[in-house]
Amino acid sequence: MTEEIGVGMVGHAFMGAVHSHAWRSVHRFFDVPLTPRLAVLGGRDPVRTKEAATKYGWAAAETDWRALVARDDVQLVDICTPGDTHAEIALAALAAGKHVLCEKPLANTVAEAEAMAAAAEEAAARGVRSMVAFNYRRVPAIALARRLVEEGRIGEVRHVRAVYLQDWLSDPASPMTWRLRKEKAGSGALGDLGAHIVDAAQYVTGDLITGVSATTETFVRSRPDGDGVGEVTVDDAAVFLARFSSGALGTFEATRYALGRKNAMRLEVNGTRGSLAFDFESMNELSVYSADDGPSAGFRRVLVTEADHPYVGAWWPPGHLLGYEHTFTHEAADFLTAIGDGVDPAPSFADGLRVQRVLAAVEDSAGQQSTWTTIGESR
Amino acid sequence: MTEEIGVGMVGHAFMGAVHSHAWRSVHRFFDVPLTPRLAVLGGRDPVRTKEAATKYGWAAAETDWRALVARDDVQLVDICTPGDTHAEIALAALAAGKHVLCEKPLANTVAEAEAMAAAAEEAAARGVRSMVAFNYRRVPAIALARRLVEEGRIGEVRHVRAVYLQDWLSDPASPMTWRLRKEKAGSGALGDLGAHIVDAAQYVTGDLITGVSATTETFVRSRPDGDGVGEVTVDDAAVFLARFSSGALGTFEATRYALGRKNAMRLEVNGTRGSLAFDFESMNELSVYSADDGPSAGFRRVLVTEADHPYVGAWWPPGHLLGYEHTFTHEAADFLTAIGDGVDPAPSFADGLRVQRVLAAVEDSAGQQSTWTTIGESR
Amino acid sequence: MTEEIGVGMVGHAFMGAVHSHAWRSVHRFFDVPLTPRLAVLGGRDPVRTKEAATKYGWAAAETDWRALVARDDVQLVDICTPGDTHAEIALAALAAGKHVLCEKPLANTVAEAEAMAAAAEEAAARGVRSMVAFNYRRVPAIALARRLVEEGRIGEVRHVRAVYLQDWLSDPASPMTWRLRKEKAGSGALGDLGAHIVDAAQYVTGDLITGVSATTETFVRSRPDGDGVGEVTVDDAAVFLARFSSGALGTFEATRYALGRKNAMRLEVNGTRGSLAFDFESMNELSVYSADDGPSAGFRRVLVTEADHPYVGAWWPPGHLLGYEHTFTHEAADFLTAIGDGVDPAPSFADGLRVQRVLAAVEDSAGQQSTWTTIGESR
Amino acid sequence: MTEEIGVGMVGHAFMGAVHSHAWRSVHRFFDVPLTPRLAVLGGRDPVRTKEAATKYGWAAAETDWRALVARDDVQLVDICTPGDTHAEIALAALAAGKHVLCEKPLANTVAEAEAMAAAAEEAAARGVRSMVAFNYRRVPAIALARRLVEEGRIGEVRHVRAVYLQDWLSDPASPMTWRLRKEKAGSGALGDLGAHIVDAAQYVTGDLITGVSATTETFVRSRPDGDGVGEVTVDDAAVFLARFSSGALGTFEATRYALGRKNAMRLEVNGTRGSLAFDFESMNELSVYSADDGPSAGFRRVLVTEADHPYVGAWWPPGHLLGYEHTFTHEAADFLTAIGDGVDPAPSFADGLRVQRVLAAVEDSAGQQSTWTTIGESR
Repeated sequence: MTEEIGVGMVGHAFMGAVHSHAWRSVHRFFDVPLTPRLAVLGGRDPVRTKEAATKYGWAAAETDWRALVARDDVQLVDICTPGDTHAEIALAALAAGKHVLCEKPLANTVAEAEAMAAAAEEAAARGVRSMVAFNYRRVPAIALARRLVEEGRIGEVRHVRAVYLQDWLSDPASPMTWRLRKEKAGSGALGDLGAHIVDAAQYVTGDLITGVSATTETFVRSRPDGDGVGEVTVDDAAVFLARFSSGALGTFEATRYALGRKNAMRLEVNGTRGSLAFDFESMNELSVYSADDGPSAGFRRVLVTEADHPYVGAWWPPGHLLGYEHTFTHEAADFLTAIGDGVDPAPSFADGLRVQRVLAAVEDSAGQQSTWTTIGESR
Repeated sequence: MTEEIGVGMVGHAFMGAVHSHAWRSVHRFFDVPLTPRLAVLGGRDPVRTKEAATKYGWAAAETDWRALVARDDVQLVDICTPGDTHAEIALAALAAGKHVLCEKPLANTVAEAEAMAAAAEEAAARGVRSMVAFNYRRVPAIALARRLVEEGRIGEVRHVRAVYLQDWLSDPASPMTWRLRKEKAGSGALGDLGAHIVDAAQYVTGDLITGVSATTETFVRSRPDGDGVGEVTVDDAAVFLARFSSGALGTFEATRYALGRKNAMRLEVNGTRGSLAFDFESMNELSVYSADDGPSAGFRRVLVTEADHPYVGAWWPPGHLLGYEHTFTHEAADFLTAIGDGVDPAPSFADGLRVQRVLAAVEDSAGQQSTWTTIGESR
Repeated sequence: MTEEIGVGMVGHAFMGAVHSHAWRSVHRFFDVPLTPRLAVLGGRDPVRTKEAATKYGWAAAETDWRALVARDDVQLVDICTPGDTHAEIALAALAAGKHVLCEKPLANTVAEAEAMAAAAEEAAARGVRSMVAFNYRRVPAIALARRLVEEGRIGEVRHVRAVYLQDWLSDPASPMTWRLRKEKAGSGALGDLGAHIVDAAQYVTGDLITGVSATTETFVRSRPDGDGVGEVTVDDAAVFLARFSSGALGTFEATRYALGRKNAMRLEVNGTRGSLAFDFESMNELSVYSADDGPSAGFRRVLVTEADHPYVGAWWPPGHLLGYEHTFTHEAADFLTAIGDGVDPAPSFADGLRVQRVLAAVEDSAGQQSTWTTIGESR
Repeated sequence: MTEEIGVGMVGHAFMGAVHSHAWRSVHRFFDVPLTPRLAVLGGRDPVRTKEAATKYGWAAAETDWRALVARDDVQLVDICTPGDTHAEIALAALAAGKHVLCEKPLANTVAEAEAMAAAAEEAAARGVRSMVAFNYRRVPAIALARRLVEEGRIGEVRHVRAVYLQDWLSDPASPMTWRLRKEKAGSGALGDLGAHIVDAAQYVTGDLITGVSATTETFVRSRPDGDGVGEVTVDDAAVFLARFSSGALGTFEATRYALGRKNAMRLEVNGTRGSLAFDFESMNELSVYSADDGPSAGFRRVLVTEADHPYVGAWWPPGHLLGYEHTFTHEAADFLTAIGDGVDPAPSFADGLRVQRVLAAVEDSAGQQSTWTTIGESR
């Protein structure tokens, strides 16, 4: 067992549960330079926070995130709240010298994200690390895709097509949640799902989106909310065209209305030498096409469960699949390693800001008759 | 054997070969009211046209399409030439009282297509029939998809996503063809591939596209051409967002640079009760999702080879697959049946015009910074 | 057009329809040295045979197969009848100096098959050719599989697993057919389906089965037959273990009770360097695994539609699928080519006899408590 | 947190790692009546056992399993050793009144398994519980398959086909392991892999295998072993036909030589109303065919990630996949629940004995020319 690092986590819903599992498990599988101690869990409701802390294995509970950040037994703050509080908590934690892992999307606005990226850069100079939780980068198949692109295996990228399809809003009778309120979530499918595919596309290609043309839609504008009706103030779906700096063309779609698609985060990249395709619903597989394979070329269904595949060596023999939560365990391993090694982890807050700018450009374009909208470095 | 109808076909390349097969075979499988007689094949080169006529089973050959159209033994003119001659031939044939089957896209410009649609409507009043050859409507799986939508099995449509992916231009060393010259082909991937998915999407949903936002790209601007170099004057790829009159959102992509995708004409439709997905590379299958299936819901891989599936009763027992050329045989059967029954077949030239307007709007939008461009009824 | 060869075909049910299509079409796609002339169709019922001849394009009809065989305008006899008449017709045709294509299984008994193989060998010495119609060898994907094995791409074979699954007898209310009567069909699923996978396994591996252990079953012993009930006297399903002369292990299953599997003729071969897998329900695909692919190894989904794949050059561009009947057109092309070239085609009647011996060993083993039963060269 | 139960686990290799994870995690996700305390880890090498205990979170280490069993802080003994020590440890633990979870196969011989089943039955009368670790029963898709069969959704079972394919011995240069020594492992692929598919087939169908016909093979008889060569004394592959008491036919294959198949534990069941198919390499999916689906019937790809699917409610939202180790966490949950509720869990040692008898019959048949061998209740 290595030296311990105290973790304070704010939020104990879906993301809180899966992050807890990662902090509990990471050192059981990875040789990390720091062993996480689940010091304190933060939440607003004292009773529910205490219950969650017990269930998930946290030593203490706090209802005031500022108190959590200030605790001496906390060296790392993990932000699992809705987007409206990310900036405030992250800025405070970085100022207090705490390492910060922040759920995606980084913030609800570009301005917030800019402030966070600036603070992160300043903190890094002091040895304080920060990372945004684009966990899909830690799917072994996606990390392998990145590796293959880096090795030049697919050549120059021509096309990217990315969708993130869910269906839990297909039924108009599904009730309101904070995810459908702009003031809490920032945006709808765009920020929740679109953020992931924008990051994944930029990560795998090693390239940046320079402009978009977009349309968004809210199919169902009001939903049951307790005894009444709540107004949906975010997008239900967002579709956009994109251009990468290399000249590659991209198409993107994020929706919660693709009936039958449960978590179809899909990415395909076509290059001049090969192609790659991924679907999270078969997350242990990567489809790889190589033009070099000649007359028996075809998309290879690579089961990404070999010891020499990214992250896999820590787990089971070939063909013994990994699941969703492993991506968070990998994220924790990478963050702890970066902290221990004294280097900046990726994706950085600056990476998160770049995604935020794409999301903002999507909204701008959608508000201006889909007119092509460029992503500036400073907006 | 039913009464014969003399067919004159112009063009004997890829489309000519497959249309010949359809005219030779249709009455062997379908109970059509008219039996096609392969009267005359038209082509520009006398030697090659004669050879093709012999190979494909045509009784005679003509090098002048006007002579072909004028022949007494021709009652049906089948146009398999590049798009630049469709309008001229079709107008002459309709004026001569000949039924016309015309390959897609209907024409190279909206103006030509308007003239053709007007002529077809006028001819129909005289009992002369015309049809545009969107053969993918005759894939049994796509016809089944249409049937399921008509029956209300997927409810109200929310999303359409359609791609038509090929890869034969991925290699910059691939030579020039007429398909890369604007004056012959009208457009590139857009008209060749995009036309099919626009028609298929409108056909399956029973709905029309009302506006688009688009980008096009020519990745490789010159290619080997004999001893020299030829300039590519069409798009290599076209991507666009679309809105249907029902409010459904669509994304479309047509490209010849998706390495590893050989003929991936794919269509997915998500509705409020179910979803449908199709990929031509598995053309005997339709994926069908029904929200009514409860805890064991999932996309059904329907093998569209049952006797009660569209067109299939004419062929083999379940599980004995059909291929690409069957779509043309089905097309011939439908056209002969319409002629025999004295009714107008679908897709009509008016349907072809509607597709043409969408293609034109795509080019307009792409030329105007992707600004949203509506598809008018008269442009 | 090359020199004509007159074809006389006996039988006009399912096989007759598909063979007719092959004889009508083969020279339109393949450069065959002989052009088939559809001279005469044989059948027992004069009215139905005449109708079938007209529908399928045969110049004449005969109700006596002996008269058909004797006709001067017949140089090739194609036997599409149930198995109980194969031997008699084939022996007569070979004796009359007519080339013979015979549907599978070659015969209903080993004794018949032995007589046929002997007659074929004797006829070959006189330049008279014969072939048994194991059409699955002419699926391009299976022919490609054979090519890859021949090239050593999968190394030494360890395992073969083959199933042929249909489901049309799942319903006990399905009526009797000649296929369920031993005196007509010889056996049930074993001869109808099992024969195909035995031949395909031996063909792809280039190896012979030397012994089997088997069990057979008749799940439903009587079925509706007109106004009465008919007794099912053949197997509904046959399962067997096999050993190849190389030492490879095989498992085989043929059944008409695999609900949901329509024509799942599947073959997988595992070797020391690679593996191959095929499923007729996706007949345009071959799955190819190569251990040489290293960290991105995976089963390649090879779309067997490239011009350099077996038979495919005669057809359409990549990704434009072929169907069931193409296998018969390929068979006709190969047979005509062999006749024209004066060589013996494969699979020969001797190959058909070898399959017959395996089927007989399966029945023997099943009748003797599954005891291992070797396949002798002369039994 | 509920009352604690002290766990002592013997063995810390692959199975030890994954069982440790289950004991650490189960109460974080499931409402179990007892919370496991990782009291003591047993192993032969003191240094490595201590290291493993630290890594996996065990409070203490023991090198003598008898001492481990005797400890007061151990109420549950988890046996993760090779098969040669299962019986001895289990008998001692049951005699000491400790609940026992034993890895599969239950034992190396039928005699050992009989003794264990008898001891388990006797212990159960004293309130001491035992379970054999057929973890694949706890794959949600397999548990769902069982549920669908129980509900009558597939009708009467006609066919079972089960394979368990791995490829880690394909390379003759792979070194010796204890798994290739009969005295340690009992058998090879048969006991390691075959045991799983025998159990799964019996579990899903709710039926028992009554007889088999089998063949086994050792392809590579000696392998590198340190500086020398070791003799492989177990089977590399086992294939067998089976009959279930209902009359259903089964085919089974277990091998470590199916190149490209990493952990393809596959099961298909065909019934009179429907069919089910599973492949562990896509472990979050179950293919379900229902004859009731009419013209749009097809195998449904059910993503078994819905809250109302077995075990899934404890985890993530739909489409967020589970992995291999979850099956052990489910196993732990079920065992703790049975202990807490005072009922006998399944699969019992008697279930393990039934599997052992099938394995023994396979070996007997293989030794007697594949002659049909029945599985008696007392052998």
